[in-house]
Amino acid sequence: MMLAEIITIGDEILIGQVVDTNSAWMAKELNAIGIKVKQITSVSDDEDHIIEALTAAEKRARIILITGGLGPTKDDITKFTLARYFNMGMRRDEATLEHVTNFFKRYNRPMIESNIRQADVPDGCTVILNQNGTAPCMWFGHGDNIIVSMPGVPFEMMYLMEEEILPRLKKAFDLPFIYHKTILTANIGESFLAQELAGVEDSLPPSIKLAYLPKLGQVRLRLSASGTDEEQLKKEVDAYAQQLVAKVKPFVVVEDDIALEKAILNIMKERKLTLSTAESCTGGYIAHLITQHPGCSSVYLGGAVAYAYELKESILGVKASTLSEFGAVSEQTVTEMALGAIAHFNTDYSVAVSGIAGPDGGTDDKPVGTVWIAVATRKGVTAKVFSFGNRRLQNIERSAIAALTMILNELNHDAD
Amino acid sequence: MMLAEIITIGDEILIGQVVDTNSAWMAKELNAIGIKVKQITSVSDDEDHIIEALTAAEKRARIILITGGLGPTKDDITKFTLARYFNMGMRRDEATLEHVTNFFKRYNRPMIESNIRQADVPDGCTVILNQNGTAPCMWFGHGDNIIVSMPGVPFEMMYLMEEEILPRLKKAFDLPFIYHKTILTANIGESFLAQELAGVEDSLPPSIKLAYLPKLGQVRLRLSASGTDEEQLKKEVDAYAQQLVAKVKPFVVVEDDIALEKAILNIMKERKLTLSTAESCTGGYIAHLITQHPGCSSVYLGGAVAYAYELKESILGVKASTLSEFGAVSEQTVTEMALGAIAHFNTDYSVAVSGIAGPDGGTDDKPVGTVWIAVATRKGVTAKVFSFGNRRLQNIERSAIAALTMILNELNHDAD
Repeated sequence: MMLAEIITIGDEILIGQVVDTNSAWMAKELNAIGIKVKQITSVSDDEDHIIEALTAAEKRARIILITGGLGPTKDDITKFTLARYFNMGMRRDEATLEHVTNFFKRYNRPMIESNIRQADVPDGCTVILNQNGTAPCMWFGHGDNIIVSMPGVPFEMMYLMEEEILPRLKKAFDLPFIYHKTILTANIGESFLAQELAGVEDSLPPSIKLAYLPKLGQVRLRLSASGTDEEQLKKEVDAYAQQLVAKVKPFVVVEDDIALEKAILNIMKERKLTLSTAESCTGGYIAHLITQHPGCSSVYLGGAVAYAYELKESILGVKASTLSEFGAVSEQTVTEMALGAIAHFNTDYSVAVSGIAGPDGGTDDKPVGTVWIAVATRKGVTAKVFSFGNRRLQNIERSAIAALTMILNELNHDAD
Repeated sequence: MMLAEIITIGDEILIGQVVDTNSAWMAKELNAIGIKVKQITSVSDDEDHIIEALTAAEKRARIILITGGLGPTKDDITKFTLARYFNMGMRRDEATLEHVTNFFKRYNRPMIESNIRQADVPDGCTVILNQNGTAPCMWFGHGDNIIVSMPGVPFEMMYLMEEEILPRLKKAFDLPFIYHKTILTANIGESFLAQELAGVEDSLPPSIKLAYLPKLGQVRLRLSASGTDEEQLKKEVDAYAQQLVAKVKPFVVVEDDIALEKAILNIMKERKLTLSTAESCTGGYIAHLITQHPGCSSVYLGGAVAYAYELKESILGVKASTLSEFGAVSEQTVTEMALGAIAHFNTDYSVAVSGIAGPDGGTDDKPVGTVWIAVATRKGVTAKVFSFGNRRLQNIERSAIAALTMILNELNHDAD
């Protein structure tokens, strides 16, 4: 199996100012072309530490992808460190200089000395032009290993990976095929799943690995294997996946590694159904999850973020008497919100959420984390209450997952 | 300076199925009590590799925090690996067993063998009860070093860190004070900032470090220092921060490490102003950013996610003739959306966004990435067009940042 490592350079990750989203994206892309990531390492902009991490990584893997530390400012030292590591001098790359010059011309900005120095690279590297920025991407051969240094700005890195690095890696190595099959379950604990699945798990050949990934009331089951015969591999893994599904059928939400809302969009698109949202405590998060996906507009028409009482009344038609009698976080209000969305936005389905996200606003009756969710269809409405604890962001996320699961259940029920 | 390292264990991060958000959160918390994170390492559920990572980490840092690999299923091996690493046997921890038993009783679920085994721990560790789950937290003294193993489920880890680990670390070591001061700038490139700030940067004492963090049209400037005298340290760093601000005043958005939307909420709350949103291509993302923040409801009343033409008309009062004559992505439509939000939601400010997020829907005239944004107040409306390229998620994020920056500019302008 061809192994890679990812090294991210920059203090911002180590002081927690920035979440490293690059590595997961890169790992997924590498996996898709048959390369396994052995380790991800985040280090600071410190020359000795970068060299230590690189030395260690080269002992474990043949491909090292480095991001970050290529900006024009003094704190960025990656390329000088690489020159030291490979024992190379620096040269000015003419193609990069021309690219940088054009870049500034296009945006009508003056160029200064530090911009020109962006064209300086270790003299033994292959330069790959960065179409979206001024920091060049640098490719080094080192014995049998390949080391690539890329900017840490996500969209510059993504473009370089897709257009340049992944195609070159595919050409450089004879790569196997890696296959993951994921099954999403809900409403069952990890240990009970494992008990139900023990028979199948014990029968798995050593080449196929089963993992359990729990998250906020859901557990993802993942079967992983690699090989050279793509057809055969898929067939074998999928057959075991079907055995797993058969054992825990009532808890299976989606037999695919897609997000809940994507599964909803797929089903509703096929059935030509439309959806709207009426959100209070989730504050637009459900709408955001849905609208992340290309093509969602054929299903999702829109919705309301009705934080204030007045907006619950004016946009969704919740009765003032309902709000005053039962409060915003109640079965009555969330039901009227869902029915109001169906009526006002003219959709086949709607989902409404009203709860106390916290940290304030809780009462003895309705503590922080109390959330009412309703799903309405043209036929009727189902409402449920949840109790999610006292962390605001987690309440928002758990509410969204519960709401999406309720829509999926309704769709599955509707199909029976 | 007291150094720590974070090791995350689990294949899900290395195959890119999960983004590691735990590490950034932990790093921020550690920093806040005067501990610097030297390295973050992600490794798979592999015994030898975990031991290699732990051995290397112990050479660089005195505190090692490990997350993940503590579930009840076969793929989770962290505690057995730790027992091997520390050369310890396993024992059944009675307090944990009681906790696990009560946990299952409370949720009315049967307990199975694998749940009971959650109470098994390496016999030389101190067990810290995990109030939110069944996997115990384990604390090991190893010579002068401290190694802690925690579950990877974010809210279990966060609770343990806040309630147990951070207080114990503060007690175990005499920690200095770490101070970061962040200044957010917009509409100026990193290299030009550096040129303007060169004089101040050169005058910084070696104990104060300046970093530039660019992201989607913004650059964060961060001054960092550590010391024992908190007052003195803050005074010194803040004085340099003021020198930086003075040099690039027109580009400074916020003099604090807070999100744009939080800066808006703070200003509007103080001035008793209200805000609503009217989103098309951002699909609720701006509303979500705002409603992440506790206390937002005194400023933010709500908004519309108007994806379909019909909803732009019915919720926001955009004229059908405007949509047919100019299209949804136009100055006219976005202006009517913003004014409609002010009128229908009765707020002092509103922001409206309409664009082509992609990947489909672009034309020669209006390619993917074309986004119109309008900010309305009781006095009038300002609209601008942007061109953000062809990545959907990035378009959504850049649109939101541009919209929030326009609100802040309007607020700053209003104050003049």
